[in-house]
Amino acid sequence: SLLPFGVACVAVGFGVKTLLDKQLGTAVNLSVRKSESKVADSVDIEDIGKQAVFCRCWRSSKFPYCDGSHNKHNTLTGDNVGPLIIKKKE
Amino acid sequence: SLLPFGVACVAVGFGVKTLLDKQLGTAVNLSVRKSESKVADSVDIEDIGKQAVFCRCWRSSKFPYCDGSHNKHNTLTGDNVGPLIIKKKE
Ligand code: FES
Ligand code: FES
Repeated sequence: SLLPFGVACVAVGFGVKTLLDKQLGTAVNLSVRKSESKVADSVDIEDIGKQAVFCRCWRSSKFPYCDGSHNKHNTLTGDNVGPLIIKKKE
Repeated sequence: SLLPFGVACVAVGFGVKTLLDKQLGTAVNLSVRKSESKVADSVDIEDIGKQAVFCRCWRSSKFPYCDGSHNKHNTLTGDNVGPLIIKKKE
């Protein structure tokens, strides 16, 4: 039967893609402003007020601000990313 | 010959992993403080001075600050990520 051979080859393909991604990394940003060649944001300190929470997972619908989507991303992928908080001293 | 069948199955495995990653996403952070369950950072406005540049690609050796590594990451993966700049108004 061809089945074991086929299954083994499918596993090899899966493994090759996995190793390749580990080596090169994969895109971090899947959907934020993909038409721009580099998504940089500049925010004035004077506009922050008491505190601002900035997204570093690239999954927020309020990007560049965090909307809590990092939690779902972490659960789905086993990742451990979280936001950057900029705040006035208390 | 088994060759065309084997090659096809390898391609299927490669494709399955690719689609799965597109659906679920993959880990964004490969190496920064992986022992923490969620990497959040808090920075005081008073400590920023005139300007600070923060990493959002998770590849910087000066994390949470940007060291320019986003450029290599973008080139390797076709991504378009860049830093967050916090600055005093001019
Ligand atoms: S939503 Fe992206 S870090 Fe919170
Ligand atoms: S090194 Fe990560 S955004 Fe610049």
